[in-house]
Amino acid sequence: MRRFVASNTRNLLYKTTRSSSSWRVLSQILSPPPAPLPPSPSSPKPSFLSAFRFFTTDLHPSSDSMDSDHYAATPLTVQTLNPKVLQCEYAVRGEIVNLAQKLQEELAHNPGSHPFDEILYCNIGNPQSLGQQPITFFREVLALCDHPAILDKSETQGLFSADSIERAFQILDEIPGRATGAYSHSQGIKGLRDTIAAGIEARDGCPANPNDLFLTDGASPAVHMMIELLIRSKNDGILCPIPQYPLYSASIALHGGSLVPYYLDEATGWGLEISELKKQLEAAKSKGICVRALVVINPGNPTGQVLAEGNQREIVEFCKKEGLVLLADEVYQENVYVPDKEFHSFKKVSRSMGYGEKDISLVSFQSVSKGYYGECGKRGGYMEVTGFSPEIREQIYKVSTVHLCSNISGQILASLVMNPPKVGDESYDSYISERDGILSSLKRRAKTLEDAFNSLEGVTCNRAEGAMYLFPRIQLPKKAIEAAEAVKTVPDAFYARRLLNATGIVVVPGSGFGQVQGTWHIRCTILPQEEKIPAIVNRLTEFHKGFMDEFRD
Amino acid sequence: MRRFVASNTRNLLYKTTRSSSSWRVLSQILSPPPAPLPPSPSSPKPSFLSAFRFFTTDLHPSSDSMDSDHYAATPLTVQTLNPKVLQCEYAVRGEIVNLAQKLQEELAHNPGSHPFDEILYCNIGNPQSLGQQPITFFREVLALCDHPAILDKSETQGLFSADSIERAFQILDEIPGRATGAYSHSQGIKGLRDTIAAGIEARDGCPANPNDLFLTDGASPAVHMMIELLIRSKNDGILCPIPQYPLYSASIALHGGSLVPYYLDEATGWGLEISELKKQLEAAKSKGICVRALVVINPGNPTGQVLAEGNQREIVEFCKKEGLVLLADEVYQENVYVPDKEFHSFKKVSRSMGYGEKDISLVSFQSVSKGYYGECGKRGGYMEVTGFSPEIREQIYKVSTVHLCSNISGQILASLVMNPPKVGDESYDSYISERDGILSSLKRRAKTLEDAFNSLEGVTCNRAEGAMYLFPRIQLPKKAIEAAEAVKTVPDAFYARRLLNATGIVVVPGSGFGQVQGTWHIRCTILPQEEKIPAIVNRLTEFHKGFMDEFRD
Repeated sequence: MRRFVASNTRNLLYKTTRSSSSWRVLSQILSPPPAPLPPSPSSPKPSFLSAFRFFTTDLHPSSDSMDSDHYAATPLTVQTLNPKVLQCEYAVRGEIVNLAQKLQEELAHNPGSHPFDEILYCNIGNPQSLGQQPITFFREVLALCDHPAILDKSETQGLFSADSIERAFQILDEIPGRATGAYSHSQGIKGLRDTIAAGIEARDGCPANPNDLFLTDGASPAVHMMIELLIRSKNDGILCPIPQYPLYSASIALHGGSLVPYYLDEATGWGLEISELKKQLEAAKSKGICVRALVVINPGNPTGQVLAEGNQREIVEFCKKEGLVLLADEVYQENVYVPDKEFHSFKKVSRSMGYGEKDISLVSFQSVSKGYYGECGKRGGYMEVTGFSPEIREQIYKVSTVHLCSNISGQILASLVMNPPKVGDESYDSYISERDGILSSLKRRAKTLEDAFNSLEGVTCNRAEGAMYLFPRIQLPKKAIEAAEAVKTVPDAFYARRLLNATGIVVVPGSGFGQVQGTWHIRCTILPQEEKIPAIVNRLTEFHKGFMDEFRD
Repeated sequence: MRRFVASNTRNLLYKTTRSSSSWRVLSQILSPPPAPLPPSPSSPKPSFLSAFRFFTTDLHPSSDSMDSDHYAATPLTVQTLNPKVLQCEYAVRGEIVNLAQKLQEELAHNPGSHPFDEILYCNIGNPQSLGQQPITFFREVLALCDHPAILDKSETQGLFSADSIERAFQILDEIPGRATGAYSHSQGIKGLRDTIAAGIEARDGCPANPNDLFLTDGASPAVHMMIELLIRSKNDGILCPIPQYPLYSASIALHGGSLVPYYLDEATGWGLEISELKKQLEAAKSKGICVRALVVINPGNPTGQVLAEGNQREIVEFCKKEGLVLLADEVYQENVYVPDKEFHSFKKVSRSMGYGEKDISLVSFQSVSKGYYGECGKRGGYMEVTGFSPEIREQIYKVSTVHLCSNISGQILASLVMNPPKVGDESYDSYISERDGILSSLKRRAKTLEDAFNSLEGVTCNRAEGAMYLFPRIQLPKKAIEAAEAVKTVPDAFYARRLLNATGIVVVPGSGFGQVQGTWHIRCTILPQEEKIPAIVNRLTEFHKGFMDEFRD
């Protein structure tokens, strides 16, 4: 694995910097290998790529004539850049996506130039980019809050549902001065936090405090904020699942900490074993790493599993016993597709075990980007912060003030998704129909794609119990691995690139999420619109057959 | 100065943590004193407060019964928190604002409980929170983009201007799939960047490249991103004006760097002298600090000066000669109130000097929060990044992908403020009337408040040539300084607290921005609505007279 990285990096450096000194500097960073922490000898080895995997594409030079040599006199160079930035990586928007954008432009300028007529972005959980329509009620309320001047006009009655008008009035009354264009309290508008807290209470059946909520521009800034609080140096570690959503590895790298991997068990449907957590925690401790927190993504990303409540209890117990902050990524809480699984928040589970504020430090992340609403572009979300001392809460608040506040439309939307139309509201029936239409279609798409992957030679795919992804394992033939090596590419990236060039389907190589060494995966969203699924299955099947024919050992 | 800090901190710690060990840990952090870098002996000394000034208020405990003792078993404590977080400070939303919120609640529950009937927040540049109305055209377009389903309805013609409908169609056509709910390209939607680039070209008269633009949730995340790229350790420094907007000190602290202060000259209207820059740069170098960038805020915050073009040329020359990245905070570019000054972007100035991409590394920050529009809650903004090598641009892009994208409404708004209605558009006249009404009123308010401050005993106030603030200097009597010391408060915070308790007017103590040692200031926005200005002047004058009568030496 390391071999691909090193040769690939060397090649990149030759191409991009043409400077022997920069290569020396980067060699020093590469050796000894950067975080994440290597697993203990008895563990499966992660096949992480180095931080330098996706530096190839010169995305947007300001001018075609530019190259590095012209910049000799400018003050910021790769050699003098913050090395934490160099080490950070975010695969979901990496090299394959850059290639996809290039192909898309080629298709636009020269239709017929590729064996497909459109690019299908299955790399990212971005439903509306693939045609999913927003929930009407939510958008009505947002529009009215953006332009309250029309609320009293008679034409508005004809254009908007009665309950959206009523809700907009209600929300405006909660905003000081009705000013949707003003900075809010740094935790978010109090009235909206009240609504969200009530929604959490309704979900969990236990109390939620609006003062525990910090509204953020999507869940990502909340994750960054908690990592920032926890990491003091590379000797501080965060336990993260492997495979993981690369926001965590990127944020830990940017803050200079160590990612302590724990492996989900693919053989048991990406099971989370406490014995594995213990083993990795001990291994990290023995290397002098102070492990500060455990990240659990439930439903899983990229793995799609939904944790059983009993498993969650064990996790809570583990965190309590080991003194770890539990960072619960619960952004897919509305996305559960199988009848035998149900979402339970970690707060509900810990409270049901009798653990309260004083017993367990727990942060739950939620977002308006996921669920059935999929409002990624609105950048709304929150974290619910419980079990921290007043002094720490003040520090969290202080950091949130440095960011001033999250965007007000996103705040409003977060309150709407946690308090949608109710029985008797004018919008209720259409809301339910839109919501259930999306969720049941996602469920069908997940199953169809899962079956399709499982029908392919050498491919096994756990079911997507929840979230928006499948993470099939591909038994790549030795010849394919050698062919990848020959072009200095990681084997699953080689597969993904071939898939894209042949079909226009964009997936993320499993190496971007971490995987057991010697295994290869891709992450594929279940988000293309349903009418496109049969064609995708056909293209995928045909491509895979051709790929195997070419490389079968 | 340090004496206040230490005794104040000790007191805080006693009150909040009740733990002798935490006091020991924090003492270690306090001594030697934390960043910023002390100036050279020949320079005026900064009267920075320590990082611990605003820890007093227990903002939102989850439960009244909580105190620190209960949290002994929880994993994250002040002692184990990332110390960079502890050192960070953001005065604009500090202790005085917390007190104001408390008074506001008391007024709501018990009208007449204070000698004023409302709190006037002059602490923060948040125009719409004080009653400024949004620009109608901008909000029309935002509402239509939020809910495009109404674009084709006949009622919409009666509710919205024709050009807002046309603009919404045009913007939707620029958004892939017309999906305002999808994540965009991490730099922002390409079509919107084209519009912004055209706006920059129209402003500067020289080319702007949409690929140089990174759209962000307000200007703050853009500033954080650049600081993150530049700072490797505490040995890396950023030259910042004193007084400065505390976003810079907070961000530098969070990233573990050193703030290298340069002092604006109050006597010459907050003049920026190249000799001072040179002196501070040399002093920093002699202490082993690698100075990487120069922050210039123009128009100034909190100081309100507008730089002369000749001065800007000197600054560009200085950055070029010394190999510094020029971080140009230009968010107040629309806010200039005096006929003898005009805003020039640093890009225009550097291009007019014949310096291009290869000569100077320049980042210009812009925001929808300021200007005449004041749309703080929308969190829109951008940075224009020029003069960096392709490798560094890739790194900036990579970091932006970790944040996915900024909110789409903020992106749309950024395109609108850089391309407002034009002659012949239906909205043009009303737009001009709204814009000029706001700007001319701000100009009158700035002058009235400036005169009011200058009429007070012992107060001198430079004019607000631009931005949204006055930063008057208050010659505090020795007795007042002693009285502040007796209650362990910084003298200008003592004054601000007295002012708030007596009048309901919220200002920020100058110590939150940095100031020459032994001088005391407050920052007061010019944003209260015009009809309230006479009452504010009266209350302020009366308060100040009483204060001086009480403490006059």
